[in-house]
Amino acid sequence: MSDFRAMADRVRNWERWGKDDELGCLNLITDEKVKQGASLVTEGKVFALGMDFGDTGPQGDLVFRRNPLHTMTIDGGDSRSMLEHGQSWDKNLRLREAAGFMAEDIMRYNDDMIVMHLQSATQWDALAHVYYEETMYNGYPAAAVTSFGASKLSIDKVDVKGITSRAVLLDMVKYRGEEMHCAHGDHIMPDELDEAASQQGVEIGEGDILVVHTGWTTKFYATGDKSPSAGLNWRCAEWLHERGVAAVAADNSQVEDPISDLEGNMLPMHMLCLRDMGMQFGEYWKLDALAADCAADGRYDFQLVAPPLRITGAVGSPINPIALK
Amino acid sequence: MSDFRAMADRVRNWERWGKDDELGCLNLITDEKVKQGASLVTEGKVFALGMDFGDTGPQGDLVFRRNPLHTMTIDGGDSRSMLEHGQSWDKNLRLREAAGFMAEDIMRYNDDMIVMHLQSATQWDALAHVYYEETMYNGYPAAAVTSFGASKLSIDKVDVKGITSRAVLLDMVKYRGEEMHCAHGDHIMPDELDEAASQQGVEIGEGDILVVHTGWTTKFYATGDKSPSAGLNWRCAEWLHERGVAAVAADNSQVEDPISDLEGNMLPMHMLCLRDMGMQFGEYWKLDALAADCAADGRYDFQLVAPPLRITGAVGSPINPIALK
Amino acid sequence: MSDFRAMADRVRNWERWGKDDELGCLNLITDEKVKQGASLVTEGKVFALGMDFGDTGPQGDLVFRRNPLHTMTIDGGDSRSMLEHGQSWDKNLRLREAAGFMAEDIMRYNDDMIVMHLQSATQWDALAHVYYEETMYNGYPAAAVTSFGASKLSIDKVDVKGITSRAVLLDMVKYRGEEMHCAHGDHIMPDELDEAASQQGVEIGEGDILVVHTGWTTKFYATGDKSPSAGLNWRCAEWLHERGVAAVAADNSQVEDPISDLEGNMLPMHMLCLRDMGMQFGEYWKLDALAADCAADGRYDFQLVAPPLRITGAVGSPINPIALK
Amino acid sequence: MSDFRAMADRVRNWERWGKDDELGCLNLITDEKVKQGASLVTEGKVFALGMDFGDTGPQGDLVFRRNPLHTMTIDGGDSRSMLEHGQSWDKNLRLREAAGFMAEDIMRYNDDMIVMHLQSATQWDALAHVYYEETMYNGYPAAAVTSFGASKLSIDKVDVKGITSRAVLLDMVKYRGEEMHCAHGDHIMPDELDEAASQQGVEIGEGDILVVHTGWTTKFYATGDKSPSAGLNWRCAEWLHERGVAAVAADNSQVEDPISDLEGNMLPMHMLCLRDMGMQFGEYWKLDALAADCAADGRYDFQLVAPPLRITGAVGSPINPIALK
Repeated sequence: MSDFRAMADRVRNWERWGKDDELGCLNLITDEKVKQGASLVTEGKVFALGMDFGDTGPQGDLVFRRNPLHTMTIDGGDSRSMLEHGQSWDKNLRLREAAGFMAEDIMRYNDDMIVMHLQSATQWDALAHVYYEETMYNGYPAAAVTSFGASKLSIDKVDVKGITSRAVLLDMVKYRGEEMHCAHGDHIMPDELDEAASQQGVEIGEGDILVVHTGWTTKFYATGDKSPSAGLNWRCAEWLHERGVAAVAADNSQVEDPISDLEGNMLPMHMLCLRDMGMQFGEYWKLDALAADCAADGRYDFQLVAPPLRITGAVGSPINPIALK
Repeated sequence: MSDFRAMADRVRNWERWGKDDELGCLNLITDEKVKQGASLVTEGKVFALGMDFGDTGPQGDLVFRRNPLHTMTIDGGDSRSMLEHGQSWDKNLRLREAAGFMAEDIMRYNDDMIVMHLQSATQWDALAHVYYEETMYNGYPAAAVTSFGASKLSIDKVDVKGITSRAVLLDMVKYRGEEMHCAHGDHIMPDELDEAASQQGVEIGEGDILVVHTGWTTKFYATGDKSPSAGLNWRCAEWLHERGVAAVAADNSQVEDPISDLEGNMLPMHMLCLRDMGMQFGEYWKLDALAADCAADGRYDFQLVAPPLRITGAVGSPINPIALK
Repeated sequence: MSDFRAMADRVRNWERWGKDDELGCLNLITDEKVKQGASLVTEGKVFALGMDFGDTGPQGDLVFRRNPLHTMTIDGGDSRSMLEHGQSWDKNLRLREAAGFMAEDIMRYNDDMIVMHLQSATQWDALAHVYYEETMYNGYPAAAVTSFGASKLSIDKVDVKGITSRAVLLDMVKYRGEEMHCAHGDHIMPDELDEAASQQGVEIGEGDILVVHTGWTTKFYATGDKSPSAGLNWRCAEWLHERGVAAVAADNSQVEDPISDLEGNMLPMHMLCLRDMGMQFGEYWKLDALAADCAADGRYDFQLVAPPLRITGAVGSPINPIALK
Repeated sequence: MSDFRAMADRVRNWERWGKDDELGCLNLITDEKVKQGASLVTEGKVFALGMDFGDTGPQGDLVFRRNPLHTMTIDGGDSRSMLEHGQSWDKNLRLREAAGFMAEDIMRYNDDMIVMHLQSATQWDALAHVYYEETMYNGYPAAAVTSFGASKLSIDKVDVKGITSRAVLLDMVKYRGEEMHCAHGDHIMPDELDEAASQQGVEIGEGDILVVHTGWTTKFYATGDKSPSAGLNWRCAEWLHERGVAAVAADNSQVEDPISDLEGNMLPMHMLCLRDMGMQFGEYWKLDALAADCAADGRYDFQLVAPPLRITGAVGSPINPIALK
């Protein structure tokens, strides 16, 4: 734990951007970075990095999050049924509203709703997601998050940043020479990030968003296997800090390796990044097509636009990040 | 109705992009358009066009859609409570999972979920949202949408397009010289779109996304008033068709005017655009800051990136569209 | 407040039934009371006292509770749609499951789900629902209720009592000579309960459940008006205590009058009954038909069976109480 | 199938109680039966037959139903957090409502909500739940059930019957001499019902509710095993018809055996009972304590009160049936 504590002290960004700051490392994304991101769109290629939200999503092994539950509130069979059966039911206001015009009007519609854990598939963690010792990023108290949501560091605070910047993919599957994915338990270490970048001929600079390919979604879609792949070791936190990375994302469930090597503490990299550094995590990003394209053209940087939904007080948001080359 | 029928025949795009097409007018967005969009990012400005999802959202007047309900599944008061009270409860698996590490581990987290009508605030309509005569865009039957969702024309089919292109804002509030918003009932007609574009010095071309500022969200946030503002008249459908617009969005609830002037038929423009043309609608987009910026610098075109969530089978998606200049 | 504090000290039942007790006044229901209740069923009349759960429910004025949202996960239009359109959608597991047998099998089914605030209509408050000074009934700490639910005093602890006993209706509408309901603000005082009982020729004894008719649901169903009716004054708490009442219910939203007359403190009777005495409240009970029957036959006592659902850790439960005469 | 068709014709009760009837066999419960039920309460014993609704519920093997998801909207940690952190958050209306009084008022409360498939644990099937050939009980069309719910044969129509009557337990575990439960696949046949009744010395008469003990919940709670136990063979439908049973319940998931022996047709007994006869099914009833008591005192009949919630348009309801002896 002393290594962890020492690193936490070195990387802590509290008050770096003012005592009221709720953006953290996203502050490193300047107008220049936004422009630089856009300047990378030289071919008009579009990669949507979002996984499916629904029955076939990646949840199932954890009790505390489930796959989303999507239901229709009106569908294609209803108008036929209602015209056939009539509107003899006076209690349902939604039925009355719909049936009111169907008899005479030709317009028909479908509508739907969802019940969804906000981190059930491709997502941003808000800075309020993980913390320790009753304190979140920038010194905000744990008490700022109640049953009503997060009054500080919630995900609806950060969309002013897009979230868009130049992004760099590091393909650890390719670097390690794996067939499909990096096997779980074999943590990705800081020097491997340097070597992968060097092998790929790409540099990571201040304000960039780092996207790490571990092969997890490839494995999941190929086999249905939800067991973890390798993730970053928590010592990568300082590596990210030194380079001024604005945010980090991966195709696995937690960016960092789910098996911590820090004396019995879960999610040490979450603690360092979200709480001490103020750096958001993107998880469950579907990277296979993008990684294949980068390998094909040898270009590993691109414009990334990954807007979170403005769910007020939320500590995470489902997203569909878009990479443009 | 004969005018409507005649226009429907003129604008219908069925089989234009193949009999299996589910993208509709998004097909008009070429690689060149994606590049052109990105080339407009000359200053690094970012505008997030999403409204809040939560208690303060725009729903309330309709029975069939409600504001989202966001709840925490674990929050900042829980670890303190659980350490104080102990873990004397053997029935709740989620509590057992969380309490299992809190006694020894310093890591703490917040997590949350949402119950949400998919069109409760800023959104894309999927092509499966509105239709008539038992048939949807490209001839797909109404029967393709069941309680299990839309097997055709659902919103998860279109993220291959980003959705990103060059977009153009037409500021009808400015054009009409209104103080805050275009009053309801005074339909926006096709010639007004031409005149506004001309006044703004901007052209709308094939593959562009049109974004119409009516002032509704400005009024809503200023006054809390949820009553409608003006929207497009359904005759604008052909105007959009002729110019090859790829998608159309507005800051009001329905793009088109909620009071139809078509002999008792609701949502005629939805029927023409979604069903006959295959053109998606974006609704409840928050445009005030973007419109102010366009007025200030005189530049009304920009890169738009508005990715829908991949909710499988959904007929709409909450979004947070990003405009970059 | 000193009157309130003094009464709280007089009525407090903590440790009366042991330091681990979670049943409170329901302990007063003996086997004899259960038998006595059943013995009152002399005619075989049945009165269901539950309100509707759905769009037409009583919620709407409060932000923090909504009417239930009921949706179908499969309905009567689906099989026809699925047979017509085929099963060409490989992503939805529920559709695949259903479609798997429909082509050959004749069996069809409907199924559904609900999103529901547990106290959105006819209900029992659990003892964990209301408290003060960080302590609940029998000294259990507020900390026993986390985001995971109530580990103490939850509603699933009390179904061992049925909940069934002899119950007595006091008809305050009749007593006060009101046409429809007792007007809001005119608190029902302890002496009125005595006088109504006397007028009705009924006695309330230890282990009985008291049911108070104020006319609220009558007014709500007749007019749609959701504004409050009169309720019990908090001084009735001691009246209930002295008589050994096991639980109290009413047809209004809160049993007690929503406008407190206790120097700015909300829900004083909830605090005294739920927290100090350990007495459950039943709210939103539909009593009009039962009250009419009691007035007709002059018999105001009956068997009551009002089982809560065993929702683990819940602080309330929707119910449909049954009165038998 | 011809046996099934012939039996369907023999047992069909359509128009037996009028062409508008929605109660079906519950019509067989007369005032006399209600009184007879109550007359069986000779000792004041109470048995709550409901299972837990929550994470530990019986769902998990089916995709289309899940265990209920219970969340708190305000809990015991919130007041402390809100007082500590202040109310500096203006977007959440529910927080503002709660925080409005906490600073000065001593009252505190907990509140909660649930997302629940209506047949996720102990339940009544409504008559609208299962049907065949586009027609439900009494000839109502499948089209009467739309996305808005069931306009005919929904569960909120039957609470006028309590549902209460004399009920009889048949203990098939005891009859077969099983240790814990009747093994799956070994269908319970009509003659076994007769023999078990005879062995127990109990008669089943018109208007009774039959409750069948197969040992499933005993096994589930003892072992966690969710795999099926034996259920009734579909030929029992006629047995129930001949005796005038008002409703049938069991401790397993489907009353009947989940493996149909009717040439590839699922749920033949559901089809005969719910659709042809108009007989409701109760499923997942927890019967172990009641069965043990009946074995101990040799008395297998009792008063049953099992009120469904009045969920408007629902095709099933969660319940907590109460048996009184």
